[in-house]
Amino acid sequence: MASMITLFTKIPLSSPSFNGSPRTHFVSIPTLPASLSFKPRIRQTGVRVLVRAALIEPDGGKLVELLVEESKRDIKKREAALLPRIRLKKIDVQWVHVLSEGWASPLRGFMKESEFLQTLHFNSLRLEDGSVVNMSVPIVLAIDDSQKQSIGNFTRVALVDSNDNPVAILSDIEIYKHPKEERIARTWGTTAPGLPYVEEAITNAGNWLIGGDLEVIEPIKYHDGLDRFRLSPAQLHEEFTRRNADAVFAFQLRNPVHNGHALLMTDTRCRLLEMGYKNPVLLLHPLGGYTKADDVPLSWRMKQHEKVLEDGVLDPETTVVSIFPSPMHYAGPTEVQWHAKARINAGANFYIVGRDPAGMGHPVEKRDLYDADHGKKVVSMAPGLERLNILPFKVAAYDKTQGKMAFFDPSRAQDFLFISGTKMRTLAKNKENPPDGFMCPGGWKVLVEYYDTMIPAGNGRVPEAVPA
Amino acid sequence: MASMITLFTKIPLSSPSFNGSPRTHFVSIPTLPASLSFKPRIRQTGVRVLVRAALIEPDGGKLVELLVEESKRDIKKREAALLPRIRLKKIDVQWVHVLSEGWASPLRGFMKESEFLQTLHFNSLRLEDGSVVNMSVPIVLAIDDSQKQSIGNFTRVALVDSNDNPVAILSDIEIYKHPKEERIARTWGTTAPGLPYVEEAITNAGNWLIGGDLEVIEPIKYHDGLDRFRLSPAQLHEEFTRRNADAVFAFQLRNPVHNGHALLMTDTRCRLLEMGYKNPVLLLHPLGGYTKADDVPLSWRMKQHEKVLEDGVLDPETTVVSIFPSPMHYAGPTEVQWHAKARINAGANFYIVGRDPAGMGHPVEKRDLYDADHGKKVVSMAPGLERLNILPFKVAAYDKTQGKMAFFDPSRAQDFLFISGTKMRTLAKNKENPPDGFMCPGGWKVLVEYYDTMIPAGNGRVPEAVPA
Repeated sequence: MASMITLFTKIPLSSPSFNGSPRTHFVSIPTLPASLSFKPRIRQTGVRVLVRAALIEPDGGKLVELLVEESKRDIKKREAALLPRIRLKKIDVQWVHVLSEGWASPLRGFMKESEFLQTLHFNSLRLEDGSVVNMSVPIVLAIDDSQKQSIGNFTRVALVDSNDNPVAILSDIEIYKHPKEERIARTWGTTAPGLPYVEEAITNAGNWLIGGDLEVIEPIKYHDGLDRFRLSPAQLHEEFTRRNADAVFAFQLRNPVHNGHALLMTDTRCRLLEMGYKNPVLLLHPLGGYTKADDVPLSWRMKQHEKVLEDGVLDPETTVVSIFPSPMHYAGPTEVQWHAKARINAGANFYIVGRDPAGMGHPVEKRDLYDADHGKKVVSMAPGLERLNILPFKVAAYDKTQGKMAFFDPSRAQDFLFISGTKMRTLAKNKENPPDGFMCPGGWKVLVEYYDTMIPAGNGRVPEAVPA
Repeated sequence: MASMITLFTKIPLSSPSFNGSPRTHFVSIPTLPASLSFKPRIRQTGVRVLVRAALIEPDGGKLVELLVEESKRDIKKREAALLPRIRLKKIDVQWVHVLSEGWASPLRGFMKESEFLQTLHFNSLRLEDGSVVNMSVPIVLAIDDSQKQSIGNFTRVALVDSNDNPVAILSDIEIYKHPKEERIARTWGTTAPGLPYVEEAITNAGNWLIGGDLEVIEPIKYHDGLDRFRLSPAQLHEEFTRRNADAVFAFQLRNPVHNGHALLMTDTRCRLLEMGYKNPVLLLHPLGGYTKADDVPLSWRMKQHEKVLEDGVLDPETTVVSIFPSPMHYAGPTEVQWHAKARINAGANFYIVGRDPAGMGHPVEKRDLYDADHGKKVVSMAPGLERLNILPFKVAAYDKTQGKMAFFDPSRAQDFLFISGTKMRTLAKNKENPPDGFMCPGGWKVLVEYYDTMIPAGNGRVPEAVPA
């Protein structure tokens, strides 16, 4: 739990100053600490020295944050009151959050049509200087006919939350058709009914999309006790710099952590040290936005991660736990690019990619929706991700001879037991224990507790496996 | 007809030497003609001077032709006889043709999985030197389980025609899964039943794809009286150079030419002259591969083009008519990139793109499958096409006041009559005449004749419009 404590005690205390001042990805310090092991590039900017960490630069060269300065918030609220209103749904707010902090840099707001089309066709955007950044999932805002009509000739609209409080202003707007079928087909590679994000956010959405430049009036908060873990890319960058990280390796997850994951993360750090890095830091980065109904909810996952970290399997000194605010598409090879790209903007230069990343079962056919290797291959070839080092997941399995998770050795395959996510969840649901060494007992207990809060099916056992 | 005569009389006579010697996109001449208006880059290569025309370079820098040298054909045939055989379908042969001549340069054969995935996700391929070329439609060869089994551990296979004659050898093969649904969804942006190419070439195709390096044993010929029009990129390049072209503008078509098209092409040349080009040449480039059943067949379209050219509306001195051997996908914004990219490889540096290029009606819903403007937008932003100048189609319509096709003037919209492809075909089917000046009478007569050869429906009239 130590690394989480670090964040509990240090980050939240300093967060008012983060939120209250214009952020940049430059870390401003008066003098250079002697312990800086990376080579800082120093720029003289008149009054003070800016140190740019040797971490990877955000896409487009500069982190694009879209938060209104604190001194101007009241003005913006008054402006918003005079504009046509678009009420945001829960997922829309999550995207506003993502955009506001620069995870999608250099996007300046919800996509206009040219960005939407480039995303659908090329999974990337060409910038004015001719350079290319990755952008694989459409970040768009849908409106319906009546909303479009109510906007009329306005060039700006107010985005409001479910209580009609202003969240943001969208300027220089462009309204264009929402080609739902095409968007779904090109993003998911299927149009089969039952895709979770599609059913949640597309099927019943309006037939128009509205793009424009976003000014977000206040930092997005969820007041669920987890906001302290929601570090922005700038905050993460600052934290990595504070820790003198010379490499950051990101691990995206939306499932409970087991000892196979832990082994992989520990092993990755060893490999980076062998490569000559002095202080590689792990960004353990659970996804915090929309997930499908049968995934373990964020709050329970965070409890589970907490227990796993308490167990000490990951070194708190070199691990940062934070929540990635994006909603989940379950779009496999298309989405894993987004997961990787967003982490570049937080300073990660290494990205661990697993088997079938962001995948799920086919909603209709009895098979996985994506080839398990495509995600790894696609993200390795993706335009705009050339700067990111992709680290393919080694296969870990339960080694019966050692009684712990270990990297699979095909020469003695019979010694290994594969425990899939589905199997794990079924065991937890049925309050059965996995083999010793699969997950720390505290973490397992959280999982069992979570399923205990669910209404049991029939005899209290859960006979049906949920697709991983 | 003069420009077609040019090709009739000049190109076929010289074609044996084209086919008999290794081709390059360099034009070999002993001395520089004084009339060369472009700036030739001259390289000394020992014995003779190579002149590279100032036309656009092929993708990847060098045209990749995959034809076996004439002297080695017998050896290759004998080699092929010892290899497992894959029998090609008609569309497969068309793709072999496309690949053999370098339309898809720098592809060296049917796609391997990494090329297939890049095509599906990025519509482009990254080359070893880091540069990017456009590639938007998968050029793949499907095999079924039994074919896969028969290949076993062979690393090469023979591709044979319907009579089991060897067409090509595929070496360094890679066999991978054929994710049909995903391929269709990502290529067409829909998986609705009734997509012509899908039904023709994918639905019943095998569940595996086989990629590799292609050696094509003999030039692909169709013996339909039209082979003389099937100029390869190298032959076209040579023809453009012979004509001292300093700009080549390509016009892709799969429909009869009407006077609106002619107006556009003539106007484009004027615009290019105004831009300072001395001799812009038009590549009038009807698609010759697979088309859907209700399109006018190639042989009739060529007859129609012949009559239209006889009429003299296009200047034979500055027009080259040739057949583009690719099959048609009807994949709108995805496919128009392929149409543009292939023409780069033939030396075209300007590409005319129309309304809803490569589009069709939605196979199930009562609407166009693609937004009519998306093709133009997508091709303008596409990776790897930056070197190509995209010329958007101006809208031409029948001007009732002038009695001819003219560019639409919205200030006097009431004077214009829009005659869609559907309307045109319905008129021809019913042996009715379009307004004078819509199409030259000879060209119209060919269309009427074509529909006359079709079995008439009911009373001999065709009441139902065919989707454009």
